[in-house]
Amino acid sequence: MLGRLNHVAIAVPDIAAASERYRTVLGATVTAPEALPEHGVTVVFVELANTKTELLEPLGKDSPIAAFLAKNPSGGIHHMCYEVEDIIASRDALRASGARVLGDGQPRIGAHGKPVLFLHPKDFDGTLIELEQA
Amino acid sequence: MLGRLNHVAIAVPDIAAASERYRTVLGATVTAPEALPEHGVTVVFVELANTKTELLEPLGKDSPIAAFLAKNPSGGIHHMCYEVEDIIASRDALRASGARVLGDGQPRIGAHGKPVLFLHPKDFDGTLIELEQA
Repeated sequence: MLGRLNHVAIAVPDIAAASERYRTVLGATVTAPEALPEHGVTVVFVELANTKTELLEPLGKDSPIAAFLAKNPSGGIHHMCYEVEDIIASRDALRASGARVLGDGQPRIGAHGKPVLFLHPKDFDGTLIELEQA
Repeated sequence: MLGRLNHVAIAVPDIAAASERYRTVLGATVTAPEALPEHGVTVVFVELANTKTELLEPLGKDSPIAAFLAKNPSGGIHHMCYEVEDIIASRDALRASGARVLGDGQPRIGAHGKPVLFLHPKDFDGTLIELEQA
């Protein structure tokens, strides 16, 4: 089921400062901040040779990362996203094995314009896993 | 400076159970558990198409992940490891920019037999970053 690691997402309190740190201190290629109001985040991609790190800053009142940052004010690694070939087949197989899919189980269109689902971190060693149909 | 994402490490309380979950529930290829007493961990590699996820269980009295698991008993994402070409040059550049390298700043031989350093998570949005000379 698991394909490529699409990205690792880090919630940050100040995306301009974080982005500048990855660019100058860590010598990485970073994209310009992009506001995604429908996802409640502003995102910067740190482009790596084999995958990417995504920096996320909360945007708006109902940001899905606001609670995480309230608990972790300095920021922290928020989730890992793996690619899958068929998100519905993956969902059904996960449910059949007893793993919990968050929300109503209907894939949403994620920040990359592709269908995504999130799995319950309590079922995976405290790790929030996103699946994206590649 | 940042090259490939070498791995993402997840601290887990029960590596046999976690490994089995990645193999059966997530359909991933996992290696057999390997005890690394000199590093204070038992490790399983989840082999992905472009990188790997490493599952780490504490081993022995002085495990470097024991405190993390005491705070996060269910487990959680512990660190991200990026490859660099020259770890001494990277260390010196990081220090010159004010970032803190953990320990005495001398690279240690990491779990893959290559020189590694860790950067202070407070300097990188709560993210523990490992650098490995590839």
